[in-house]
Amino acid sequence: MNDSATYEVVLGVDVGGTGTAFGLVDRAGRCHAQGAMATDSHQPPEQFFQRLFEQVAALQAGLAGHPVLVGLGFGAPNANHHTGAIVHPPNLHWEFVDLPAQVHPYYELPVAVTNDANAVALGEHRFGAARGMRDFIAITLGTGVGGAIVANGAMVYGVTGMAAELGHTTAVPGGRECGCGRLGCLEAYASASGIQRTAAELLAQRRAPSTLRALAYDELTSLRLCQEALGGDALAREAFTVTGRILGAKLADSVLHTSPEAIILFGGVAAAGDLLFLPTALALEENLPLVFQGRVRLLPSGLPGADAAILGAAALGWTQLAGTAP
Amino acid sequence: MNDSATYEVVLGVDVGGTGTAFGLVDRAGRCHAQGAMATDSHQPPEQFFQRLFEQVAALQAGLAGHPVLVGLGFGAPNANHHTGAIVHPPNLHWEFVDLPAQVHPYYELPVAVTNDANAVALGEHRFGAARGMRDFIAITLGTGVGGAIVANGAMVYGVTGMAAELGHTTAVPGGRECGCGRLGCLEAYASASGIQRTAAELLAQRRAPSTLRALAYDELTSLRLCQEALGGDALAREAFTVTGRILGAKLADSVLHTSPEAIILFGGVAAAGDLLFLPTALALEENLPLVFQGRVRLLPSGLPGADAAILGAAALGWTQLAGTAP
Repeated sequence: MNDSATYEVVLGVDVGGTGTAFGLVDRAGRCHAQGAMATDSHQPPEQFFQRLFEQVAALQAGLAGHPVLVGLGFGAPNANHHTGAIVHPPNLHWEFVDLPAQVHPYYELPVAVTNDANAVALGEHRFGAARGMRDFIAITLGTGVGGAIVANGAMVYGVTGMAAELGHTTAVPGGRECGCGRLGCLEAYASASGIQRTAAELLAQRRAPSTLRALAYDELTSLRLCQEALGGDALAREAFTVTGRILGAKLADSVLHTSPEAIILFGGVAAAGDLLFLPTALALEENLPLVFQGRVRLLPSGLPGADAAILGAAALGWTQLAGTAP
Repeated sequence: MNDSATYEVVLGVDVGGTGTAFGLVDRAGRCHAQGAMATDSHQPPEQFFQRLFEQVAALQAGLAGHPVLVGLGFGAPNANHHTGAIVHPPNLHWEFVDLPAQVHPYYELPVAVTNDANAVALGEHRFGAARGMRDFIAITLGTGVGGAIVANGAMVYGVTGMAAELGHTTAVPGGRECGCGRLGCLEAYASASGIQRTAAELLAQRRAPSTLRALAYDELTSLRLCQEALGGDALAREAFTVTGRILGAKLADSVLHTSPEAIILFGGVAAAGDLLFLPTALALEENLPLVFQGRVRLLPSGLPGADAAILGAAALGWTQLAGTAP
């Protein structure tokens, strides 16, 4: 890039329970510089934003040419797109954060906020696997299960600003306890801890030998289960099959709601690839009425893994600047 | 109305398995004239349209002033909004009907087509209980269970044109046989035949005396069950309570998808009023995460019963003419 060139960037910020990642992303989805820091939510939010913007200024100063910051996009748990607030975020100690109010002392620029699943969906729509799609659904399978729905080309936020909370739809009536206090939520089966619980159940139900029998419950992470399954452990493989069957059946319900062109699976559990995708796709098709069969694609994320959350938050900023849907 | 006045009307047509109703509806939702005829789908579709348009011409001629027909809207089972076709409609003998191709020999006017549930939702949006709402869901509880979703002010059709087939979401995994060939669909519980099946199950499960014990299975219609429940029969009342509990729990899943401002219940089973609405509302709230509780209204239709389907089909025509969402 020419040192004298002026170009516009949006700051994309992914606020996580432990760490926060951020980057300066141009209109085409190129991340020119990025950084990370501890979220440290024991401190008041004012200190978080002070630290963040000091680092952003340093990043910007280090870039070639003249990057002009034109907007900010935040992805954060329990973020409300309508109000710009983060309210009772799980895994964060802040009770309430008014993001625009925190940003405006530093930057008089447009600020857009949404939850992490919506941010990822916007990233997929603008830069990734959902480019050009008018109707798709994105599902994050991580610590929790989140969802995002794009219909008629626009993100669905609903009257609460909290639409697509698909992790808390009921997968198994009267089933496992969920963190939300109810029973049988999809999150209790398809999240990282969901597949962990499934592995533990299978260890109890089956008599077959398994490498998993030597592991503590806490060691049955989705990454470890994936490694053991790829290494040939039948029980670890079955944990993904069972998870995919429950997930796929439930995704059929979602297809019947908005009839998407594709469902994009994202996050740690989705990183298992075919181990999860094949049984999920099978169960999805089995649970659809005839006219919907073969009409929806199950896709992995099209964003580079490490940058996906930053790109998603930046996509939100760019979308807000364009003043158009979604 | 002044005899010399010129005014614009849309023809709204509700094509049903047995009968077809139609009317000439102005922009404000006033139905100036209406008629009905047998659908008679044993005859080829050409004859249906010939009969229909003869009657429409007679209706139009009988009106005061100068009604100018500016468009047509059709609500029909298995109608695809994108293609304008009716494909394998249940309860009709036609295999495939290309509606615009059938209409254009008679009228060179815009033709819009959608399924009956979407038509009713458009009627509610333009003339009824959903006026001014950007996000709502309409559910028809009749021979089948249909759904329609409006999000961001626009009807959700999805990539297939068949979105919101909520009757075939899974209410009870592994449950009752559904007409679609799968098990446990919402339609197998919340349709007219669903509540009939529930009443028969309750007659088997309970020992209490009931007026229903003197009736044949075929006599356990939703209308009769409603009459007996209002007359004090506890078992008939319980049939509505059980139905409402299953319906409400499933509607919670729908709220988690698009976070609507309201859900409108429509159709024969919904005519039972509080008998159905109270247990449904209770189960809906019980099955929602805290942040959604108290944020969605359960409403009856705001359209006059007899004209609702005509008004819905006409609303579709007017919406198409306006060239705007939904």
